[in-house]
Amino acid sequence: MAQHRSGDRMVMENGLDSLDHHEHDHDHGDDGTIEHESRQNGTIELREEEVSVEKVFQHKLVPSWRNQLTLRAFAVSLALSILFTFIVMKLNLTVGIIPSLNVSAGLLGFFFVKTWTKFLEGSGMLKQPFTRQENTVIQTCVVASSGIAFSGGFGSYLFGMSKRVADQTSDSSDFKDPKLGWMIAFLFVVSFLGLFSVVPLRKIMVIDFKLTYPSGTATAHLINSFHTPQGAKLAKKQVKTLGKFFSFSFLWGFFQWFYTATDQCGFQAFPSLGLKAYQNRFYFDFSATYIGVGMICPYIINISVLLGGILSWGLMWPLIKNREGDWYAKGLGDGSLHGIQGYRVFLAIAMILGDGLYNFFKVLTHTFLGLYTQFRNKRESVLPVADQDSPLPPQQSYDDQRRTQLFLKDQIPTWFAVGGYVAIAAISTATLPHIFHQLKWYYMIVIYLIAPTLAFCNSYGSGLTDWSLASTYGKLAIFTIGAWAGSSHGGVLAGLAACGVMMNIVSTASDLMQDFKTGYLTLASPRSMFVSQVIGTAMGCVVSPCVFWIFYKAFPDLGTPNSEYPAPNAMVFRNMAILGVEGFKSLPKHCLLLCYILFGSAIAINMIKDFLGKRGRYIPLPMAMAIPFYLGPYFAIDMCVGSLILFVWEKLNKAKANAFGPAVASGLICGDGIWTLPSSILALAGVKPPICMKFLSRATNARVDTFLGN
Amino acid sequence: MAQHRSGDRMVMENGLDSLDHHEHDHDHGDDGTIEHESRQNGTIELREEEVSVEKVFQHKLVPSWRNQLTLRAFAVSLALSILFTFIVMKLNLTVGIIPSLNVSAGLLGFFFVKTWTKFLEGSGMLKQPFTRQENTVIQTCVVASSGIAFSGGFGSYLFGMSKRVADQTSDSSDFKDPKLGWMIAFLFVVSFLGLFSVVPLRKIMVIDFKLTYPSGTATAHLINSFHTPQGAKLAKKQVKTLGKFFSFSFLWGFFQWFYTATDQCGFQAFPSLGLKAYQNRFYFDFSATYIGVGMICPYIINISVLLGGILSWGLMWPLIKNREGDWYAKGLGDGSLHGIQGYRVFLAIAMILGDGLYNFFKVLTHTFLGLYTQFRNKRESVLPVADQDSPLPPQQSYDDQRRTQLFLKDQIPTWFAVGGYVAIAAISTATLPHIFHQLKWYYMIVIYLIAPTLAFCNSYGSGLTDWSLASTYGKLAIFTIGAWAGSSHGGVLAGLAACGVMMNIVSTASDLMQDFKTGYLTLASPRSMFVSQVIGTAMGCVVSPCVFWIFYKAFPDLGTPNSEYPAPNAMVFRNMAILGVEGFKSLPKHCLLLCYILFGSAIAINMIKDFLGKRGRYIPLPMAMAIPFYLGPYFAIDMCVGSLILFVWEKLNKAKANAFGPAVASGLICGDGIWTLPSSILALAGVKPPICMKFLSRATNARVDTFLGN
Repeated sequence: MAQHRSGDRMVMENGLDSLDHHEHDHDHGDDGTIEHESRQNGTIELREEEVSVEKVFQHKLVPSWRNQLTLRAFAVSLALSILFTFIVMKLNLTVGIIPSLNVSAGLLGFFFVKTWTKFLEGSGMLKQPFTRQENTVIQTCVVASSGIAFSGGFGSYLFGMSKRVADQTSDSSDFKDPKLGWMIAFLFVVSFLGLFSVVPLRKIMVIDFKLTYPSGTATAHLINSFHTPQGAKLAKKQVKTLGKFFSFSFLWGFFQWFYTATDQCGFQAFPSLGLKAYQNRFYFDFSATYIGVGMICPYIINISVLLGGILSWGLMWPLIKNREGDWYAKGLGDGSLHGIQGYRVFLAIAMILGDGLYNFFKVLTHTFLGLYTQFRNKRESVLPVADQDSPLPPQQSYDDQRRTQLFLKDQIPTWFAVGGYVAIAAISTATLPHIFHQLKWYYMIVIYLIAPTLAFCNSYGSGLTDWSLASTYGKLAIFTIGAWAGSSHGGVLAGLAACGVMMNIVSTASDLMQDFKTGYLTLASPRSMFVSQVIGTAMGCVVSPCVFWIFYKAFPDLGTPNSEYPAPNAMVFRNMAILGVEGFKSLPKHCLLLCYILFGSAIAINMIKDFLGKRGRYIPLPMAMAIPFYLGPYFAIDMCVGSLILFVWEKLNKAKANAFGPAVASGLICGDGIWTLPSSILALAGVKPPICMKFLSRATNARVDTFLGN
Repeated sequence: MAQHRSGDRMVMENGLDSLDHHEHDHDHGDDGTIEHESRQNGTIELREEEVSVEKVFQHKLVPSWRNQLTLRAFAVSLALSILFTFIVMKLNLTVGIIPSLNVSAGLLGFFFVKTWTKFLEGSGMLKQPFTRQENTVIQTCVVASSGIAFSGGFGSYLFGMSKRVADQTSDSSDFKDPKLGWMIAFLFVVSFLGLFSVVPLRKIMVIDFKLTYPSGTATAHLINSFHTPQGAKLAKKQVKTLGKFFSFSFLWGFFQWFYTATDQCGFQAFPSLGLKAYQNRFYFDFSATYIGVGMICPYIINISVLLGGILSWGLMWPLIKNREGDWYAKGLGDGSLHGIQGYRVFLAIAMILGDGLYNFFKVLTHTFLGLYTQFRNKRESVLPVADQDSPLPPQQSYDDQRRTQLFLKDQIPTWFAVGGYVAIAAISTATLPHIFHQLKWYYMIVIYLIAPTLAFCNSYGSGLTDWSLASTYGKLAIFTIGAWAGSSHGGVLAGLAACGVMMNIVSTASDLMQDFKTGYLTLASPRSMFVSQVIGTAMGCVVSPCVFWIFYKAFPDLGTPNSEYPAPNAMVFRNMAILGVEGFKSLPKHCLLLCYILFGSAIAINMIKDFLGKRGRYIPLPMAMAIPFYLGPYFAIDMCVGSLILFVWEKLNKAKANAFGPAVASGLICGDGIWTLPSSILALAGVKPPICMKFLSRATNARVDTFLGN
């Protein structure tokens, strides 16, 4: 399931970050041109031309870019980074679906600094008021930092290198166990390249091409609304709701802990639909996180996941199991890749690859079509040159004028960007082969020559469609570099490491461009955005490995199937690398045929979806359907419960559901996520839950009672 | 715990039926005079003189008494009777605290008939509109019928005669197992005596003495408010809320069932406060019923119960257990009356007897003082003669005039009442010794000679204080008749049977007088009240034994400690009878001393409570404290959760909590209660829950896992 982690990121960056986008205009086929800026984006109005936001703010001073970067902003960012890294890491290591935390980051950042400034204001010590620019800086820093928890691959390629995961696959000859030192070093040498590679293009993308960047735009609108007086009132109510559900979710996690003596105990193993269904992993596991994730994800994603679960665990696996002894050897057990587990993993990979490949070509086509349209239009008027003040066209609105003016005020010299990129690439090429001896220096040079182009493609594509293909590019690297190195020269590890390099570059590149868009809309300086992103990335390079380390040390069965933290994508990524290097020889009988079918179906479903246009929004997403293939549908049930709650709420009071739904969901996710902090501390300290809440069938219970009676 | 069942009834008729009374003016010492009619009774205004209710209703026709008794009313009554009998029976057999279902009966009766008449109105077939008089008839019938489920003693004296309970006590020589036939016959010959004994006194009690009857008055106000146009709107909302929580509670009961393979499985055995606390029966057992009961009971009752639980299971029993081998023989086990169980049962009995005795004398004193004041005042004006139309004093309000006029219109001749009493007493005296051969005919004659006086005392006392002492009178019969018969002549069974006779008479007598008051305030005819009460009682005499029979057959461990239905009061009543016949010789060491102390404390606490007056409402009630002595404090925790919910709700929105709190509580109680119907049917059909949700300590779980692994 090598593309799985990427699958999640796709779900994250597309399905989740831009849920409005997904929900209301699910048809990416129409997004190829830039006229879409004026389309409605859920509850947040993108047509800023109609109502001038900047006129409301015109009497508020915009601080200089240095003054936007305050110490308090970074203190708050660090605290929130740690919180969100825990959450992202937990999700990485459980199901791998990561919802957008942008809204929570915006809300909590606003809340913390506002409380702090209110307090200082009262004591007359406030030197600088809290501005939306500062809020954007916090937002940028937190998202950059927690982004590393994803692109660092702790639940995918990085952990896929470990012996523990290797032992579950067919090729366990080559491995590299996680160590705090090399992980931090690795992240530092690869995570900043993306930033430098796209900095010079910011004016083209944001001002000239007017790309949408739905997530960035939505975040900017949120921050703008917080800082208008009425918005602050709503924000406070939202924070209160978030806090309430945060506490509930935290306490619920705490309560559950007591009954979880082993992984097979407690609410997480509650056979709420009966024991038979539980054996096929159909159950509701009372997880506040997944309910929250389900509330944030668009309905179609939750339904796709459930559908995938029913298709796989309700239909395919039971049918394939009937062929035990025929299709595969008897008595291999549930976890063998040569048995039933092989079907689960490789069918999921096939479906994810099919979906990924289709969207890769779709976005690429859009990119080139879009670029072609841009340049043709521009040639007819003025030829745009990067970083050069072109005279503003007279038809621009007040908002656009003011934003463009401030966006162009603080420049980042092109020589700085190019120099930075070359310097870091050089350091990286020199260092990485020492960390991964399988990764030769000439692979690195090739990667770094191609990377800026791919980074641009990804930035441009996500600007158009909000669909970041970071992990698809990563998988490309797995297959190309893996095949180049070959199995005898450690191709598996070389592939995984190359995947990491590629993912980090393209992922941070598109994140940065999103932030530039947010900054543009909130009048934050591009310089402060860049610095904030750099600082956030640096934070992430330290915080993420440390948080992963805590999980790794606290839960010794991390990464094993059926444990609390199965880290499913690690296995998927490693198997993809093996597949790339060794081919299909290790697959069980008929598995390859089924893979072809699912690969083809994924492409076909996407084509039908795009062909149907608006009506295609009822067609499930193959990527989302593949996730439960390996894990089982239990979390799909949780997510659908979340959907159901939101659905009923929307029926009862749509306005309230829209305003407070994200706060409730964030509260549920954050509370449960932060509970993992004390939970891992308890595990590290050797404090184990005292009680096992066990579920036994009537007959087994009678046997146990007799046993205990003696 | 012979008075325990009575204790419950005291809690029921005083603490619960009249929770407003209890909460707002907890000081019974002030209730001795009749001026209290104008005191405020919670949210319901008793000062009807200020706002004329009858002027609002003056254009509405009052149907003749025959037309008040409609077929549809009795059909609805029968359905509600069965529902409430299930609920009361379940409570009888679990903890024995029975909340007032008057409000639910009123609400649901209104809802059913209103829906029915609306439907008929639409189809143009409605012959008779739904009046408040008809509603009162339903209310009266349902309360009379479900009252039998309590006074029938299925959780106390009647079941206390069975072999199963006898085997748990020190005297198991004499027993009579429940059979449907003799139970119905017994109830029919004793349950109507109370009605005839107090009928002639209705004018004295209701019109001349102007007794309060807080429960009856509250019900009347509820019904009146339903039938004013605005009231119906609120009632509909309340019914909707009730329905919502009814469904939730029913589904929750259904869900729980699946995980309850044995009594030690499922949510009812959830060690929510840890395993150590669970061993001492401190846990929250997720029971919707007790949470609902906690919401209806006044705070002080819930706190008293919790306090009693902490005192006994948190303090006394652990300390006494340390003396094992010294105070009582080692290795007797948890259930032996010669060991720790003896302390539990007899200390509870001592406390209940102390409280009961104190209140008995208090109410008796009030009764005589009140009578004395009445007659002195009357002698100074006009001597009242029963059932004679005295001219109305001119200072009466419009409401009083109209109500008195209608109350006196339909008469019940005194010869009919006296004749009925004598006839039924004769039949009963002839029949009962055939059912219980230990009960001689001359005991019966003595009882029937004294009973009318006691029935009057109880009616008058409950009119003043809302405190029905039915089970205290029953205990009186246990001790007197038991001692008279002596142990060699089956004194235990004679005592229990005499208790039943006495309880039925005094309990139905006070119920009837309450209903006359309700009828007076809703312009329902005394005749229709009487007929409705007779029909309701007859229903109860059939429905209650049948429902008990279902429980008895469906749950074979009914009445054994630690089972789902321990029927604690059956044991308590039988032990009281044994104590009365045999004296204290069977008690373990120091138990008698502790009994004296608790008996004295109960009286002392009551005296302090009365002495402090209004401030005394913070002093706990000894009767309520004694209930968890035997059962453990788990239900106290549930009830306190209910209290807490109501408390928080009242803090947030007092008006809404007052209007909808009772509906929520009733919904929770009724839903869980009605679930016992399908649950017992499943049990009778031999369908057993498939799963056991078991709670094991970490170490035990490891052993079990090893055992199951092999």
